[in-house]
Amino acid sequence: MIFLDNASTSKLCPPALAAAVEMGEKMYFNPSALYGEALKVKNAIEEARAQLASMLGIESDELYFTSCATESNNWAFEKGVKNKKGNIVVTKGEHASVYESALVQKSKGLDVRFVSLNKDGSVNIDDLCSKIDENTCFASVIHLSNETGAINDLQIISRRIREINPRVIIHSDGVQAFAKEDINLKKFGVDMYSISAHKVGGLKGCGALYLRKGIHIAPLIAGGGQERGLRSGTENVVGIVGFAAAAKYTRERYDAEKIKEMRAAVISTLMPLGIKVNGNAGGAILSISAEGIKAEVLQHMLSDKGVLIGLGSACSSKTRNNRVLSAIGLSAKEIEGSIRISFGIDNDLEQAIFAANIIKEQIITLRGNIR
Amino acid sequence: MIFLDNASTSKLCPPALAAAVEMGEKMYFNPSALYGEALKVKNAIEEARAQLASMLGIESDELYFTSCATESNNWAFEKGVKNKKGNIVVTKGEHASVYESALVQKSKGLDVRFVSLNKDGSVNIDDLCSKIDENTCFASVIHLSNETGAINDLQIISRRIREINPRVIIHSDGVQAFAKEDINLKKFGVDMYSISAHKVGGLKGCGALYLRKGIHIAPLIAGGGQERGLRSGTENVVGIVGFAAAAKYTRERYDAEKIKEMRAAVISTLMPLGIKVNGNAGGAILSISAEGIKAEVLQHMLSDKGVLIGLGSACSSKTRNNRVLSAIGLSAKEIEGSIRISFGIDNDLEQAIFAANIIKEQIITLRGNIR
Repeated sequence: MIFLDNASTSKLCPPALAAAVEMGEKMYFNPSALYGEALKVKNAIEEARAQLASMLGIESDELYFTSCATESNNWAFEKGVKNKKGNIVVTKGEHASVYESALVQKSKGLDVRFVSLNKDGSVNIDDLCSKIDENTCFASVIHLSNETGAINDLQIISRRIREINPRVIIHSDGVQAFAKEDINLKKFGVDMYSISAHKVGGLKGCGALYLRKGIHIAPLIAGGGQERGLRSGTENVVGIVGFAAAAKYTRERYDAEKIKEMRAAVISTLMPLGIKVNGNAGGAILSISAEGIKAEVLQHMLSDKGVLIGLGSACSSKTRNNRVLSAIGLSAKEIEGSIRISFGIDNDLEQAIFAANIIKEQIITLRGNIR
Repeated sequence: MIFLDNASTSKLCPPALAAAVEMGEKMYFNPSALYGEALKVKNAIEEARAQLASMLGIESDELYFTSCATESNNWAFEKGVKNKKGNIVVTKGEHASVYESALVQKSKGLDVRFVSLNKDGSVNIDDLCSKIDENTCFASVIHLSNETGAINDLQIISRRIREINPRVIIHSDGVQAFAKEDINLKKFGVDMYSISAHKVGGLKGCGALYLRKGIHIAPLIAGGGQERGLRSGTENVVGIVGFAAAAKYTRERYDAEKIKEMRAAVISTLMPLGIKVNGNAGGAILSISAEGIKAEVLQHMLSDKGVLIGLGSACSSKTRNNRVLSAIGLSAKEIEGSIRISFGIDNDLEQAIFAANIIKEQIITLRGNIR
């Protein structure tokens, strides 16, 4: 089996698995308990926090663990948007968890402004700036698109936003970028940043939110006062310790050059079929449209041949339309024929070539069946 | 080491560990993806849901997975309390996550009514009924107290509430009762019920909320529409599958008679020291006060001797006071000398007697030091 749906999730990496076994079996104590064994668990959490923080270029006490990036995004919107008479600005390229969070604010009567995308999948910065004004209280711009792989330059974007209104709280969903791209949140100038463990080789059910010192938001989940009072609930120890171990493991093995080669191999194999590359960001996420095929059918045929690819965000798999591909100008027909191939640290060039040839064969078969 | 703080958390049980290894390493696919391997993961989640639902006496589609019982409790309050001009009724014996959720509603201007407890730790049903009126929209009564072990008879309580106002949504925090007590939520007549994996041998970071069919509440966390649109975020597959496995494992091994024997052995060993049993519920949670000692000091000394006990809820470990013990009439002095011993399926009578003798020794030592 060749797994090329890494943007959707990843295999649990060995150090994260080891952490699960050790923390689950031996270091199972409640980190809020006061005996020595529990303090060791608390320390393990703090070590994980420090390591993840250092990978983000932030201080340890600016990172708060949550149950997933979806929770992080919901928290950022629900409690970060304080001026209920102001407006908030989000891009049309956001993940469902950001998009739906924005719609929740809209349903409460807030003025929510959606920013258009460029053809390459990145946000249109001029359009973004035209929507920011003195009443804007919150803006959210995805770092690396889960649909097209397009990267937004957060440093330029946050500078441009602040030139217009320095009080805007700037949030970014960094799920697909973390442990893969170079990240320095202080340099980027954002106030909040969401990350997820299961996209970097950790377990599902663990995420985090960066909250820049000085940004004060209420908890989304109240109770025992864990996470310095901002996220209650017994800490997901296994998830947290494994998250840090996985992020380190992935960061050390993520080879952008190798990814480029795999990507190029797939594109050059499929190009003779007249496929279209959507966005063409050059990274680990490759969205392509093949005219005249139904992507679901292709995905199913590929799965039978042992090649697993995506159709786009798994979190939007229930909706037929693809909001983000639509925003970069794809027709309904093109969206219907779109697949998402996403590479990870476990893939190699041989796999990519092998898979590309199977994809090619199946597209030809499908088209033949139609004619 | 003898672990007698099972109400705080429990060791990961073997089937939950096996599930973590298998689901994390081999069945790591995103359950929302559409290829066959992902559907197997989705099926594993649904099997876990069905098994947990059957242990609660409910239908599978009435159970929603969350990141923890704290989230379940927050969700129940934040979205279950709809009549913002009504009143809500909660007991003084609730866990921090319920108590703080109630305070959040109070801070929004809602009339929150706290019900007194009986000396045995259970809720005073007459006081509860006196606080329910036609404007009550929500009531929350803990099933089994995490502080005293007292059990509330939910069947009688919900019937009494509904006699006064049949429209009240009744929630119960069932964290300490699940997989230990006999539970049939349909018979109990409650509308919502929160449970947690890490109290029954599963991983931290996984919980669930029962929502009776007919109860419609908005999601706390929006996004990709997982959990039938009510709890977005990629499912915590390892946590969920392990939760069901652990609940079954614990239920099969939980021996109420053995627990009673352990409890009796500890009480009879310590009784000559003039200790007071708080609540005396007869179950796995034993709260005692030993006059003239500081519980933190005793806990620390016991930890050095390899006996791990609690001081009460780990989720309230940062606050010196104990709200619940105070509500059943303990003085500040008695609370200062209170420890919580909680038994689990890994404990046996020999351990209990051994630990009780060490506790006895250390209390004598402490008292000697004071005199």
